[in-house]
Amino acid sequence: MIDWIADYYEQVENYPVLSQVEPGDIRKGLPNAAPAQGESFDAMMQDVEQLIMPGITHWQSPNFFAYFPANASGPSILGELLSAGLGVQGMLWATSPACTELESQVMDWLVDMMDLPQHFKTTRNGGGVIQDTASNALLTAMLCAREMKTNFETNRIGGCPKIVAYISSQTHSSAEKDIKVIGVGTQNLRTIEVDENFAMIPEKLEAQIRKDLEEGYIPFFVCATIGTTSSNAVDPIREIGEICRRYDIWMHVDAAMAGSAAICQEQRAAFDGLELAKSYAFNPHKWMFTNFDCDCFFVSDKSVLIKTLSVLPEYLKNEATENGAVIDYRDWHLQLGRRFRALKLWFVIRHYGVEGLQYHIREHIRLAAEFSKWVKESADFELLSEPPFNLVCFRHKNDNAFNKKLIQSLNKSGKIYLTHTVLNGQFWLRMSIGQTQTELKHVQDAWRLIGEKSRSIS
Amino acid sequence: MIDWIADYYEQVENYPVLSQVEPGDIRKGLPNAAPAQGESFDAMMQDVEQLIMPGITHWQSPNFFAYFPANASGPSILGELLSAGLGVQGMLWATSPACTELESQVMDWLVDMMDLPQHFKTTRNGGGVIQDTASNALLTAMLCAREMKTNFETNRIGGCPKIVAYISSQTHSSAEKDIKVIGVGTQNLRTIEVDENFAMIPEKLEAQIRKDLEEGYIPFFVCATIGTTSSNAVDPIREIGEICRRYDIWMHVDAAMAGSAAICQEQRAAFDGLELAKSYAFNPHKWMFTNFDCDCFFVSDKSVLIKTLSVLPEYLKNEATENGAVIDYRDWHLQLGRRFRALKLWFVIRHYGVEGLQYHIREHIRLAAEFSKWVKESADFELLSEPPFNLVCFRHKNDNAFNKKLIQSLNKSGKIYLTHTVLNGQFWLRMSIGQTQTELKHVQDAWRLIGEKSRSIS
Repeated sequence: MIDWIADYYEQVENYPVLSQVEPGDIRKGLPNAAPAQGESFDAMMQDVEQLIMPGITHWQSPNFFAYFPANASGPSILGELLSAGLGVQGMLWATSPACTELESQVMDWLVDMMDLPQHFKTTRNGGGVIQDTASNALLTAMLCAREMKTNFETNRIGGCPKIVAYISSQTHSSAEKDIKVIGVGTQNLRTIEVDENFAMIPEKLEAQIRKDLEEGYIPFFVCATIGTTSSNAVDPIREIGEICRRYDIWMHVDAAMAGSAAICQEQRAAFDGLELAKSYAFNPHKWMFTNFDCDCFFVSDKSVLIKTLSVLPEYLKNEATENGAVIDYRDWHLQLGRRFRALKLWFVIRHYGVEGLQYHIREHIRLAAEFSKWVKESADFELLSEPPFNLVCFRHKNDNAFNKKLIQSLNKSGKIYLTHTVLNGQFWLRMSIGQTQTELKHVQDAWRLIGEKSRSIS
Repeated sequence: MIDWIADYYEQVENYPVLSQVEPGDIRKGLPNAAPAQGESFDAMMQDVEQLIMPGITHWQSPNFFAYFPANASGPSILGELLSAGLGVQGMLWATSPACTELESQVMDWLVDMMDLPQHFKTTRNGGGVIQDTASNALLTAMLCAREMKTNFETNRIGGCPKIVAYISSQTHSSAEKDIKVIGVGTQNLRTIEVDENFAMIPEKLEAQIRKDLEEGYIPFFVCATIGTTSSNAVDPIREIGEICRRYDIWMHVDAAMAGSAAICQEQRAAFDGLELAKSYAFNPHKWMFTNFDCDCFFVSDKSVLIKTLSVLPEYLKNEATENGAVIDYRDWHLQLGRRFRALKLWFVIRHYGVEGLQYHIREHIRLAAEFSKWVKESADFELLSEPPFNLVCFRHKNDNAFNKKLIQSLNKSGKIYLTHTVLNGQFWLRMSIGQTQTELKHVQDAWRLIGEKSRSIS
């Protein structure tokens, strides 16, 4: 299997990046019932190659420029394998102490590696935990904020009295899902306007907060973003944080993809003001060579998190927990069970070292800058804005219909895969650069193909 | 790494089952900062052996009888490895069609393999999805029930008007966490009494529902359990389901561990009435040889699930979704991102075949019956009840303090690992039999050790 995967990475450029199958094609090839008797591993791998691979969109291809990178790496894959092999549960410290303690240590390493606020360390008031996704990290943050603002009474009596949350029009869609989940409702989610760079306008936020207060609403939560999903826009964290402090509102900062950039000193301006955040999340599974899932969620005060999420049935009681000497990570997220995800993150950090990670992140940012230069120099294409980090939003100067045709034709070619966004009514192509194997030549080839396809449409 | 894992499984019995370290021991061995330069794989594996392994509690040991089995297997570990290697995202059909279609197919296979209601199939009104845990499956079910009962208005306006949920005193603790999360609050969670076998008493449930209705409450959700966490008790699903139908209440059935037993025809009496459930969950990652995480969540009507959880931002729009021709599993659970977990489940089912899975499940049930016979024949020990499935609850006839000393002494020996529960004020030892490698001799050795240790305390 290891050999198969190694071969896969060597051949990945030979597959069409975007799977070319039609709905139902894959299911049609699969038998309608499970086998009664066991089958050989060879038979299974033959089916992987013949039945499954045509339905794979190759996220690990160096020509994958869609969504976000979700970049994996050798050490990460081996770390995941080791975690599966050991098969331990980390729900309590006692169920495998190393699973908890390695995680705490690696999360504290990240605080120093990325110059995050020291109070995010487990050895201080705060702490970090690996969650599955930034969506659920945001949900956890929202829950904590709800409970803080309602004196932990909503947990008991339910029904949230007129509390309101704030996002920008560019905040990730999980905020909308999460406000539903926690029972606050979308009508109590305020969407704040953004500026010409698609960043939240602090004055608009404060004006809305004041209006809500006057009308008897209780502001409880703001989600600010470093690197929005659409265009990698950066909200002004310090200004938003100061407003949140003034009005006693929980600020969560979501840096799901762009958070990895903080490993480079020269990128840290975007993170200025992070010490004002009550919680923060970024995903090594997006742009730090760690296969999904691995979201790093930090809080400034772990006692709030634990008070919000802790329940203690008899069958989970144990000495170490009762002494308060340990962290039980089950109280740090929604689910109870958890696997040993710190292993893969530890492997990645040690394999690359801080300088190795910096090198690769810088290289992706450099490639995005190169690509944006070509866009600017071109007569036919335009750039949305100078690319923050690794994402370039651009479009052909022709209309939306033309750009839709262009992206369809690029993706159908199988040579590259791009996705789109719509900003101010305009259709933009997103060139997200960050795959582990992506080099200058792949970005050059992509730009050449974009030119060719656009000329063949005209 | 594969060799290392193979060696591990050969040597696993040489390790103490329960890690013997003290809080902080593992962290002490780890450096305080991440390395600046990359390190070799050998250095990492040396640290795994020296620094990590002492902090591992060996869930995959044949002498692990604590909590639930969480049993892994070769095909499952290789499936997880393949999933990590391919590194695809399955949030939308379009992001890797095989990831969605294989999952739908395998979930439909399970319906037939386990004789679950046909309407749970994706090809009918319902459908199955892999979630991370039974906790989050229960949360998802509760959310759907909340929205059904409030005409999807809570999603919009928030604040849940006097809706109440019902569990038994033996329901998993995640119900308490989940009722907090969704903003209904623990004071609106009714705990129904259980009978002498720790099963919910339907008459008590109905009486409470009537009382709540009289007082102006709106019953919206019941969680029934097949195989409670404490003692594997089985709630009367059909009777509870009939009550739920009468009062228009969503019944969720949680069979997290015991659900695997449904693969054996002779165990299916416990599942009678499951066609009355709106949702159902069981965990192949507990007792079906599939490493964590892999919870199978089924609903009878997928449109409710999708209506409850769906949001659609521009950057996720695509042709296949807009045609309605495909399943986008991101609308079937809380988080957005998802990995290719169907691979490992597919590998497990094909490797063992239905008959192979039946063989191993039957063997575990037989071993539990054997063990309970020894308890009954012993002068010093007593049995809680005839073991349903694979869990035996037993105790020394001496007092609680004695039994606590006994379990501590057993676990400190490193030879076996057991956990406990408290039922009606009595401290019971839980012997959970289901590890992939557990054979008669391990259960015999455990029983011998329990006898020895109990005599050395007396």
